[in-house]
Amino acid sequence: MIDFLNSTSVAPEFVGADKAGDTIGLCIPNVDPLLLEKMHVKKKYSVIGIVSDRTGGGPQLFSMDEGIKSTNTECIDVEWTNDTKGGGGQGCMIVIGGYDPSDVREAIKVTFKNLHRYFGDVYGNDAGYVELQYTARAAGCLVEALGAEEGKAFGILNACPAAVGIVMADTALKTAGVKIISVATPSHNGSPSNEGTLTISGESGAVRQAIIAGRERGLELLGQMGDKPVNDYPSYIQ
Amino acid sequence: MIDFLNSTSVAPEFVGADKAGDTIGLCIPNVDPLLLEKMHVKKKYSVIGIVSDRTGGGPQLFSMDEGIKSTNTECIDVEWTNDTKGGGGQGCMIVIGGYDPSDVREAIKVTFKNLHRYFGDVYGNDAGYVELQYTARAAGCLVEALGAEEGKAFGILNACPAAVGIVMADTALKTAGVKIISVATPSHNGSPSNEGTLTISGESGAVRQAIIAGRERGLELLGQMGDKPVNDYPSYIQ
Amino acid sequence: MIDFLNSTSVAPEFVGADKAGDTIGLCIPNVDPLLLEKMHVKKKYSVIGIVSDRTGGGPQLFSMDEGIKSTNTECIDVEWTNDTKGGGGQGCMIVIGGYDPSDVREAIKVTFKNLHRYFGDVYGNDAGYVELQYTARAAGCLVEALGAEEGKAFGILNACPAAVGIVMADTALKTAGVKIISVATPSHNGSPSNEGTLTISGESGAVRQAIIAGRERGLELLGQMGDKPVNDYPSYIQ
Repeated sequence: MIDFLNSTSVAPEFVGADKAGDTIGLCIPNVDPLLLEKMHVKKKYSVIGIVSDRTGGGPQLFSMDEGIKSTNTECIDVEWTNDTKGGGGQGCMIVIGGYDPSDVREAIKVTFKNLHRYFGDVYGNDAGYVELQYTARAAGCLVEALGAEEGKAFGILNACPAAVGIVMADTALKTAGVKIISVATPSHNGSPSNEGTLTISGESGAVRQAIIAGRERGLELLGQMGDKPVNDYPSYIQ
Repeated sequence: MIDFLNSTSVAPEFVGADKAGDTIGLCIPNVDPLLLEKMHVKKKYSVIGIVSDRTGGGPQLFSMDEGIKSTNTECIDVEWTNDTKGGGGQGCMIVIGGYDPSDVREAIKVTFKNLHRYFGDVYGNDAGYVELQYTARAAGCLVEALGAEEGKAFGILNACPAAVGIVMADTALKTAGVKIISVATPSHNGSPSNEGTLTISGESGAVRQAIIAGRERGLELLGQMGDKPVNDYPSYIQ
Repeated sequence: MIDFLNSTSVAPEFVGADKAGDTIGLCIPNVDPLLLEKMHVKKKYSVIGIVSDRTGGGPQLFSMDEGIKSTNTECIDVEWTNDTKGGGGQGCMIVIGGYDPSDVREAIKVTFKNLHRYFGDVYGNDAGYVELQYTARAAGCLVEALGAEEGKAFGILNACPAAVGIVMADTALKTAGVKIISVATPSHNGSPSNEGTLTISGESGAVRQAIIAGRERGLELLGQMGDKPVNDYPSYIQ
């Protein structure tokens, strides 16, 4: 080990980190203009925040959506990655922009405050996982990342391996009258992850009902492949 | 844990599952039309079957090919995924369609009956793996997924890391007069997997001879990277 | 286990292998013309060498760059793969061509001689990793793979999760006057890896200074996500 490895200082950009999804939140108050030029952001703010993770996209996006709602910030890029430390899903990177570093830092802090909540309906076993997400009112982050309708109820049914997610989607759509925003499968997805995903919008009660029905079906199926799927945090979709 | 996690019922769509490749087989007897509309299937059957896995594509495709041969069903979509639970290869999702749920379920049952056989020539160690597949007569699933010629002998030589597969391909082509169907490398593949893959067609004896020669070469090379590669089930290509 | 698994011979194509990155080096002295036809090489040499790995791209590319410098060989293809045995990064496959098998084998031997050196500034913990690479004079392999400028100083700052790499890039660019060759993020990269990457060129002192500053920042941030990041081999960038 060499000396610089013994540095105990903390980089000024650091805002927070959480073992849940190996998530880190950073803020660059005055991003280098040459770097900003090369980044794929839809609007060039000089103050940017980044939430980046190894595992998960839904929990971070729904958490950041709360951060966007509660601050004067905007989601300017969301990128997906085949990662999850060997899992079948994706990691993601969310970039937000603002005019005031304190706004951007606050949005990231709100993200970490909500992170465990939105990991509450992620259930896994050795064979795969089932993820559900729900919000009564989608904001900028979910609009940018997932095509949610601003201010409308929005939900996700997602599972690995992919076929489990397709049956969950079928069950959800037969349960309640909701609008399909997207159906994603391995070859038709942000990255070739092993997921079947349905995103839905509509009346909040219907969206929640569809998600709850899909969740039960998905957990039954994943349970057939191994141990009973478990969640690391309490379920929030009731 | 909350109540719905204690559900012990089995979803009606469930047909079978196997730890080999973390493979699950499902049948949706009357798929939701809005979902079917969004799926990327080449023909819109209202009865669909899905075989989805975490690890492997060859074993599931060759097994489903037997299922297709023995029932009145059709392969309508095959999708690849970067997964294998951290391995260098791919998982896949196979969608079949039929007119009668009993046909679709039977095709999936035949798939699971054959699955261990077609895992018989998958050899691995900590550094990677070598996979061989062979059939004397390719049918709809291999035609759809891998461009095999209907009714002709068809084979696969595949390895991770990719370079091992390229040398296996070179050895196979120098051994017997076979027709190249495809050569796949990481950037020129269904997904950026770490595989070198040759698929071949031709006279059945020549195809088998080419595969056996490539297998010996691949196992020698992979063995140079770590322990002697082992297969979990008996080899079927003799 | 069946008999062919007990083969103890070594394939003639084998040149070397190393546990570092699970890297193997092979030489095909007279590649099958039908195979060569299907390969995506920029020039069709009949003598090809391949270095292929599970984990890492930078160390292998910088090592092979030394091999190219010291032999009459040419880099004719570089392909990236989502692999790293479950990590968030990429593996790669490097193909070189030559007129004389002894040249190609020598280039591969030089690659393995340098491999541990170029793994010296790869630092990891359970949450991710930080990688730095530097050369005072880039040659054919780095030009082909990463758009380096022939004969100029060239460096890489790379980290997983991606946000860490972006802050490292920002720090590096604010530290010294260097030229940006590329900025890569998950959706704008060779494969959807969970990496933020900056490649730079310029005056050698400036490039090294920028890399050292980015390294310190990256190690601080990654350290916030888990244990102190460690390198398996001694750092070479001083």
